[in-house]
Amino acid sequence: MSSKKISLGANTFVPITPVWIVGTYDHEGKPNVMTAAWGGICCSKPPCVYVSLRKATYTYGNLIERKAFTISFPSQDYVKEADYFGIVSGRDIDKFTATNLTPMKSDLVDAPYVNEFPMILECKVIKVVEIGLHTEFIGEIIDVKAREEMLGEDKMPDIEKMKPIIWSMANMSYRNVGEAVGKSFSIGKRVPKTKMP
Amino acid sequence: MSSKKISLGANTFVPITPVWIVGTYDHEGKPNVMTAAWGGICCSKPPCVYVSLRKATYTYGNLIERKAFTISFPSQDYVKEADYFGIVSGRDIDKFTATNLTPMKSDLVDAPYVNEFPMILECKVIKVVEIGLHTEFIGEIIDVKAREEMLGEDKMPDIEKMKPIIWSMANMSYRNVGEAVGKSFSIGKRVPKTKMP
Repeated sequence: MSSKKISLGANTFVPITPVWIVGTYDHEGKPNVMTAAWGGICCSKPPCVYVSLRKATYTYGNLIERKAFTISFPSQDYVKEADYFGIVSGRDIDKFTATNLTPMKSDLVDAPYVNEFPMILECKVIKVVEIGLHTEFIGEIIDVKAREEMLGEDKMPDIEKMKPIIWSMANMSYRNVGEAVGKSFSIGKRVPKTKMP
Repeated sequence: MSSKKISLGANTFVPITPVWIVGTYDHEGKPNVMTAAWGGICCSKPPCVYVSLRKATYTYGNLIERKAFTISFPSQDYVKEADYFGIVSGRDIDKFTATNLTPMKSDLVDAPYVNEFPMILECKVIKVVEIGLHTEFIGEIIDVKAREEMLGEDKMPDIEKMKPIIWSMANMSYRNVGEAVGKSFSIGKRVPKTKMP
């Protein structure tokens, strides 16, 4: 197999991204949600996530004003709703009403989450980083909450039970998570110890 | 099914994260790679990615000095090597030699990538954000390169061909990508149009 690579230009092509639902309140207290693929963990201590948003989104204004957000992780049962949250704007539509989903007010931060989804994060904005078209909001994770039936025997969230979805930009498709192909901090030990020359 | 959620505390639990291999040169020009799960796209224009690293990593010093990095995306054939790159330090070991993989010097940025992997990004550091234990390095993507046989008929990277891996922190396992469960910006249109009351 050839290892020669060809240039695809300056693009945001990565194999997969998360499908994260960002929950905020607007200035009138109306709950809103939007879908973000530009998101990830960015610090372990304090535990922090970021989402990067365009200024044009309704959520951007909410975040500037309220300084708080949630992330709700949809299971594959909610792929239709997750996609919908990224198609329409909270300026025009009450997305919770449209999808018959329930906004649950966080008791820790000033933001709502999607009650039906298996796991959520509650976050306070601690940094706002201007990059270009997108602004990065870094939030400290105040708590993680999950439905009890989503936990494994070790009381950790179990991916087999949560059935999260991911997004493939190049294929423009949502995917579920496939089979396990190795244990982390373990399978790498099969690389032979290096012998110095 | 109960929708009541229980608190899991302030943690970095998210269902899945990327498995990204960060390539840098050290002060002597030795190529190094490390595995990062704290990474993602953070801007579309200019196209940017970030990786968050602890100051203790060898890569941290390389990034401060060289201001450039690559991201190499392993296919599932390289799960062992991807895990290994996160277990050992470039201070002690030449990870390319240990794994028999080939460091390819980027012709655009001052960093090497893993030649055998199906797709890579070449990035210049444009911002360094101190958060806490981790420092976030934001890099502008100068080019994306992929092996021609990894592209679909539309000349976009094809996830079925690349066979990328993802990481589930809670289950401590690498996973491959599962089946498609919906087209993006499409399946959401099945949500009925909202009728105002």
